[in-house]
Amino acid sequence: MSVTVETQVIHAEALKKVVGYKAVDDYVRSGMVVGLGTGSTAYYAIQRLGQKLQEGKLFDIVGIPTSTKTERHAKSLGIPLVTLDSHPVVDVAIDGADEVDRRLNLVKGRGGSLLREKLIETEARKLVIIVDDSKLVEGLGMTGAVPVEVIPFCWRHTMRRLLGLECLASCNVSATIRSENENIYVTDNNNYIVDLFLEKPIPDIVLAAQQISEIVGVVEHGLFLNMVDLCIVSGKDGTRVIERGL
Amino acid sequence: MSVTVETQVIHAEALKKVVGYKAVDDYVRSGMVVGLGTGSTAYYAIQRLGQKLQEGKLFDIVGIPTSTKTERHAKSLGIPLVTLDSHPVVDVAIDGADEVDRRLNLVKGRGGSLLREKLIETEARKLVIIVDDSKLVEGLGMTGAVPVEVIPFCWRHTMRRLLGLECLASCNVSATIRSENENIYVTDNNNYIVDLFLEKPIPDIVLAAQQISEIVGVVEHGLFLNMVDLCIVSGKDGTRVIERGL
Repeated sequence: MSVTVETQVIHAEALKKVVGYKAVDDYVRSGMVVGLGTGSTAYYAIQRLGQKLQEGKLFDIVGIPTSTKTERHAKSLGIPLVTLDSHPVVDVAIDGADEVDRRLNLVKGRGGSLLREKLIETEARKLVIIVDDSKLVEGLGMTGAVPVEVIPFCWRHTMRRLLGLECLASCNVSATIRSENENIYVTDNNNYIVDLFLEKPIPDIVLAAQQISEIVGVVEHGLFLNMVDLCIVSGKDGTRVIERGL
Repeated sequence: MSVTVETQVIHAEALKKVVGYKAVDDYVRSGMVVGLGTGSTAYYAIQRLGQKLQEGKLFDIVGIPTSTKTERHAKSLGIPLVTLDSHPVVDVAIDGADEVDRRLNLVKGRGGSLLREKLIETEARKLVIIVDDSKLVEGLGMTGAVPVEVIPFCWRHTMRRLLGLECLASCNVSATIRSENENIYVTDNNNYIVDLFLEKPIPDIVLAAQQISEIVGVVEHGLFLNMVDLCIVSGKDGTRVIERGL
């Protein structure tokens, strides 16, 4: 059994590497401002970008990291980094996702970087999402949490407000505050994350996104709607590109 | 001249005291959970509440402070304090405002506590606003800033997004980051405040509130819409109570 498991792990890593490399090879050109995603799949895109810069195959690139973790990774590869403050137009952003539905709407943030990711990827002329096919879903929120970044002040109250949302009433929703090593997990922006767990899909995700945003203690949520331009998906039968609206 | 100015200051303080005392006398009963506002007018309501508790004229009261400043003030008077986490239903909240329009919509937050104020006052069964008549306006945003609490990360970018909002295009809007002693002002929630200055009134405040909220780096804004139950206004001709919808 251990051999099988190990093979699966290698296989999963190989799938992530394929899409990470392909995103950079197909969509990054010299001179671009590139949004650098966070997570185990975006990792490979950053590796590839660093490699091509070092080899001189790409030049005049600046990256905008979506987390302090990505910032450290990109720095270690010598990728020049800037921020939205100086570079408000992002030519292309490349990132993974926790779930992708048929319309290329996403759940993101299980890795904890949803706010900076959304801030930067909202500004991307082209947002390229890279996943293996295990991330493709019919209804969002069924394979794990829908993360919501909240102000630490009165987070229990904000969690109760989330649980009481009418738009989630049919979902049998439960919630936990995200923890790490027995402490509450703190985001890059010094906030907390409430993880919403749903037993049934959200009936109207646009309404849910709006109502979650409107709760006063909520800073941002992990529903990324109508943002993605294309999604590169790898699976055992190869790699395919899904464009929005096609 | 100095005598005149001093008289005006005393007069302004007297008006604040009148409404602060009246709010507690008319709307706070023993056994209530009371939201305690922040600022120079709410100050007098807190003073009165502390006084009546000490005199035994009110008992079994708990307060929920809307800022660390108010928390210190209320503690110094011996007012028992709780939070929304333990007491999610607020019987009455009493607070000042920077501007009040005919429909009892408000601009708040010039004192810096808008997020906690909104968090707590949203939960109030009755929200009582106390002002002197200099705060009554025709159109919101004309006597000073409309404050917006933003995530520190890429605040310049978020400010640009605010300035670019279509719903404010007719207002000749400008913006500054709030500062204090030559440093950027930091809120109780470790965020920054962008102050929006408008030369013309916001044509559609509901739309503006929604669009400001939707900007990713925005945490909350100082437009308090459809929240107020009644407003106690003091002026040189006396004190009056304006109820919403009357």
